Amino acid sequence: MGNMNRQWRLTKRPVGEDFDDCLVFGEEPIGTPGDDEILVKNLHISLDPANRVWMNEGDSYKAAIPLGGVMEAFCVSIVAESKSPDFIVGDVLYGFGHWEDYTVTDGAGWEPAPDIGAAPFSAHLGVFSVVGPTAYVGLLDVCDPQPGETVVVTTAAGAVGSLVGQIAKIKGCRVVGITGSDEKCTWMTQELGYDAAINYKTESVFKALLKHCPDGIDCHFEQVGDAKVLDAVLTQLNQYGRISLCGWISVYNATAPIAGPSGLANLVMKRGKMQGFIVLDFPERIAQSHTDMRQWIEDGKLKYRVDVVDDLSGAVEALHTLYAGTNKGKLIVKVQDDPLLG
Amino acid sequence: MGNMNRQWRLTKRPVGEDFDDCLVFGEEPIGTPGDDEILVKNLHISLDPANRVWMNEGDSYKAAIPLGGVMEAFCVSIVAESKSPDFIVGDVLYGFGHWEDYTVTDGAGWEPAPDIGAAPFSAHLGVFSVVGPTAYVGLLDVCDPQPGETVVVTTAAGAVGSLVGQIAKIKGCRVVGITGSDEKCTWMTQELGYDAAINYKTESVFKALLKHCPDGIDCHFEQVGDAKVLDAVLTQLNQYGRISLCGWISVYNATAPIAGPSGLANLVMKRGKMQGFIVLDFPERIAQSHTDMRQWIEDGKLKYRVDVVDDLSGAVEALHTLYAGTNKGKLIVKVQDDPLLG
Repeated sequence: MGNMNRQWRLTKRPVGEDFDDCLVFGEEPIGTPGDDEILVKNLHISLDPANRVWMNEGDSYKAAIPLGGVMEAFCVSIVAESKSPDFIVGDVLYGFGHWEDYTVTDGAGWEPAPDIGAAPFSAHLGVFSVVGPTAYVGLLDVCDPQPGETVVVTTAAGAVGSLVGQIAKIKGCRVVGITGSDEKCTWMTQELGYDAAINYKTESVFKALLKHCPDGIDCHFEQVGDAKVLDAVLTQLNQYGRISLCGWISVYNATAPIAGPSGLANLVMKRGKMQGFIVLDFPERIAQSHTDMRQWIEDGKLKYRVDVVDDLSGAVEALHTLYAGTNKGKLIVKVQDDPLLG
Repeated sequence: MGNMNRQWRLTKRPVGEDFDDCLVFGEEPIGTPGDDEILVKNLHISLDPANRVWMNEGDSYKAAIPLGGVMEAFCVSIVAESKSPDFIVGDVLYGFGHWEDYTVTDGAGWEPAPDIGAAPFSAHLGVFSVVGPTAYVGLLDVCDPQPGETVVVTTAAGAVGSLVGQIAKIKGCRVVGITGSDEKCTWMTQELGYDAAINYKTESVFKALLKHCPDGIDCHFEQVGDAKVLDAVLTQLNQYGRISLCGWISVYNATAPIAGPSGLANLVMKRGKMQGFIVLDFPERIAQSHTDMRQWIEDGKLKYRVDVVDDLSGAVEALHTLYAGTNKGKLIVKVQDDPLLG
């Protein structure tokens, strides 16, 4: 690699899921940090459904990626050079970075990666970065599930969903997961401890929820935004039911409006709550989520899968698997090895 | 009237808004209270959009009215006979009663009507019963608007909406109301102090909100559930925007599902909240709402209109005006005079 920096730049705005020729792979010289800046070496980058949203022209919960800018991602990186009093070479950082080998930054948006105990390095992005805390606060802070309540989870075998279901079980809830294949259903009920799993591609979600949620639904963790599934949940929602909106993947690649659920009136009847959240809104809860999750992993109560893509050049192709639902577990791109970490 | 009791009974479940022949007007002898029971003489009954929901077979936030049962309503009544140690003849009560002259009850669901100061008797239902506290808690407790924020209100000239808008103004907000006639728009901006009013029948709500909410929308008070209006609001919702769901009148008479808003994904992007509520969930706030509203009325800051129907026999016909939007102000049926009250 020498002193060259491989990177993916966003050169035009995609329409739908057709972002392949909007992201261009190339090489440039590695940058040099100025005063109070650092150079981070990116080790692992996280691929997330929301990455597609960031490519749009309009701002979302964060500013849109500028045209010509390097594609963005959550990263685990190591400080390679430092001209900042706040960072030392060798610090392992977690932050809001880019699809490239090296990034020059003033350190804003970066912080020390948490202590992940004996977990493998990939767990930084697999459980301890965005994914785990998202599941944790989205379920516990937005839904506040009580022991004995029924929790429903969409994309329940996904990186976030699989943790949501397990955390709900740890909290003493009945948990029903919705996913897209029988293999995932089996994994959820056999390995993760879900009480029931629904394959939305082969079953009526409405009927299956009616069967698997005999006491109605108290909490729902939504990541898809499919009107049929939401209507099934809304119809069976209990009084004071809480719906946590983590994502809305069904429209991230949409090119025309898609009609929403027709059953929102039930939010009035049941005094229900539907609330969007981003883990970044709960900074004071992140440390607690790390502590709890590390303990649960050590106790064998929390399992997770990681799907590592071995080269930065495969990032675009890998991103598609998120929308196709073919990845298994948290999707990560390994950018480069670090000799310090072995 | 002698010892006869006029009453409306629900004899079959309506489909759509066609409830005329489901409610049958008749006379029966006035009941006699047993031990620990009272006989209340109903003076005013309240007609509300949700009355139609109560006629359905399924329970809503309250149990469905049983077939053959007397139609239900919020009432202001006076104790005519008492065999209960808790009530004295002449007590003015507010409660969950029926469309009839007299009702025998054990007093459950009834409480002393609040002190309404110098306001006319109709204000018991016009401002101080369900309507005022609904506007008060639905805006202040569910949305928690801050000074300088922008609040949007649907059915903004209605019994609840007109109070919501005025309370938001009292709290220092910019207030934009949506309604269905130019006459109501004029009333809202000229008399009630709204910053802007939108006639959804003649204007694009999307464009009008864009014009009248230059800083976006922080709070929205929803009573209709129209997907187009909700989408306009969702698109222009600010970060951490709050949507209070008071009602969903667009579907109360619907005979088939109506597609919901397509813009719910924006609840995720903006970390918005959409929450249904019923004033009954805030019992501890009712007294405060009465105190504040009485003060605001005395100070000339809170205005309200009452539309009184003079005879119980006209109740069904009057109920239709709620869905047609032709009533002006809170719709009340005066059941009978009371000599004690003059």
